[in-house]
Amino acid sequence: MSKYLLNNIKVVLVHTSHPGNIGSAARAMKTMGFSDLCLVSPKSFPDEQANTMASSAEDLLDNATVVDTLQDAIADCQLVIGTSARSERSLSWNVFEPRRCGEVVNDELIKNNEAKVALVFGRERTGLTNEELSFCHHLVHIPTNPDYSSLNVASAVQILAYECRVSLLAEKNTKEADSKEEQGEEIVNSKDMQGYYDHLEKLMIEAEFLDPEEPRLLMSRLRRLYGRLQISRSEMNILRGMLVAFSKKIKR
Amino acid sequence: MSKYLLNNIKVVLVHTSHPGNIGSAARAMKTMGFSDLCLVSPKSFPDEQANTMASSAEDLLDNATVVDTLQDAIADCQLVIGTSARSERSLSWNVFEPRRCGEVVNDELIKNNEAKVALVFGRERTGLTNEELSFCHHLVHIPTNPDYSSLNVASAVQILAYECRVSLLAEKNTKEADSKEEQGEEIVNSKDMQGYYDHLEKLMIEAEFLDPEEPRLLMSRLRRLYGRLQISRSEMNILRGMLVAFSKKIKR
Repeated sequence: MSKYLLNNIKVVLVHTSHPGNIGSAARAMKTMGFSDLCLVSPKSFPDEQANTMASSAEDLLDNATVVDTLQDAIADCQLVIGTSARSERSLSWNVFEPRRCGEVVNDELIKNNEAKVALVFGRERTGLTNEELSFCHHLVHIPTNPDYSSLNVASAVQILAYECRVSLLAEKNTKEADSKEEQGEEIVNSKDMQGYYDHLEKLMIEAEFLDPEEPRLLMSRLRRLYGRLQISRSEMNILRGMLVAFSKKIKR
Repeated sequence: MSKYLLNNIKVVLVHTSHPGNIGSAARAMKTMGFSDLCLVSPKSFPDEQANTMASSAEDLLDNATVVDTLQDAIADCQLVIGTSARSERSLSWNVFEPRRCGEVVNDELIKNNEAKVALVFGRERTGLTNEELSFCHHLVHIPTNPDYSSLNVASAVQILAYECRVSLLAEKNTKEADSKEEQGEEIVNSKDMQGYYDHLEKLMIEAEFLDPEEPRLLMSRLRRLYGRLQISRSEMNILRGMLVAFSKKIKR
């Protein structure tokens, strides 16, 4: 398996409270060949406890990126997968099992070996907020015991990293050489999507469809809607072009 | 899934040095619905550190059996699967991947739902001795990063328990199939989608973004874009509401 592809997968830990969990997550990642760790507003980092738990995976901590918001963490990512402790099916997202998650990540990297994928893990107690979830293309739920779903965050990292690794290994085994043919069109990244949402929000305010004083969940619902799509560059050009055209007419 | 079948699987930790690992293993087990923990000559047990790491899985520690030798631990088991950090195939054992391990355990329990299965995990540093391995029917190797295979014992428990659980759930799901309908909000049908496309087309013409004399592939591309989504009734209401708002402003 190409190390290169594993390096395309970024583990994002959001607002982790216990530095020991960051260290354990780094160790879990490294056992599965992952290297890219990104921390969104960790409570304490760097921290001696993280280093202790990382065992010999301290290099991942040394190279970890620390950012303020999830948006910053996923700005360069074409595919963003969030983890959820809830299993209910939701129309707003595709909720996968971990195995399917491995396949989806693998498909993405086979289609475009320059793609950047984020696996996003929430706070120890409360997970990801609905707003954070709205930035994810898919959700993955690890099928825990309904009577005790208290999966440690590093254990969740371990299972998903394991499934991604197994999926990439299987791919390698089946079509080792089969060099990447069907190169698709470039998929826009999260930063591009954010640009689109900002533009759309502005237009909705101009059209008095969105009241900035009382925005309710409108933007979050739209992010969930468009976030389920992987949008190509040329499709984004159409969507943005449409907004520009509407905006011109509305302002006149 | 029958809890009963999960109760048939015993996790055996051999000569564990760090009591924290015993606690983490208990937690990992409980998240996957396992309950039967057996400790072979642990260095320190019971131990406060084990309880701390067990989080709310202390009941597994309270009910754990402590024995002197692996033979004692597996005396009541029909199937014994050992874990190995080495991946080399060995003539003496069938070495499985974790997924296959889940299937083998499942097959055994389906064949005989009174069967007792042991998953055996060795010492933190050195694993199982050759003598201990000789009591195992099969070996399982978790496909770790060859450059860093330092999987924590609780992480190894987590992955194998997960694979067993997934395998048992799959069994249950195929049996129960069809009985459950899919929950959730209504998805709009093709007629609704066509209504949306007609509305969008009209607005794009009003905004002079679409030239009806030379429509090119614009509508077809948009249909392909939105057609990839399954749009719920309430989402469609947002999309239509937005078009109405834009339209009003444009016509003024």
